[in-house]
Amino acid sequence: MFKAIVIVKRRPSILDPQGMAVEKGAKHLGFNNIKDTRIGKYVEFTVDTKVKSAAEKEVSEYCGKLLINPNLEDYEYTLEEII
Amino acid sequence: MFKAIVIVKRRPSILDPQGMAVEKGAKHLGFNNIKDTRIGKYVEFTVDTKVKSAAEKEVSEYCGKLLINPNLEDYEYTLEEII
Repeated sequence: MFKAIVIVKRRPSILDPQGMAVEKGAKHLGFNNIKDTRIGKYVEFTVDTKVKSAAEKEVSEYCGKLLINPNLEDYEYTLEEII
Repeated sequence: MFKAIVIVKRRPSILDPQGMAVEKGAKHLGFNNIKDTRIGKYVEFTVDTKVKSAAEKEVSEYCGKLLINPNLEDYEYTLEEII
């Protein structure tokens, strides 16, 4: 069994309205040093297989078909074997 | 200047409807090995100060007042000095 952690980020060239909105709130609260806030997703799950290459394939497909928007986002992941 | 990366997760005891919904989609697509999907936030931003302790204080306050819901979520962060 493997534990997968996937980080999903908007591509640097793509505007992040959520990050901009939160940062605007920060300015109103007096956080003047906070800049370039960007908000992505942190996804964790387990993959119930013993073969690492099978787990990698499954993670890639899960990301490509459900977790990310391939037009706007990139992702990276780590896989760690667990008991 | 510091680059901050904040990971926001729901507490393990709190249900994650978004993760459950995505995983249900996964089952429909035939991903039967994917389990325990939980979706959190990955937030990155810069803190424009030269003093690490000041940056830490600002990150904690930014998280507590804007980025997280203290009733449901926990967070962890890393700070890295950049030029």
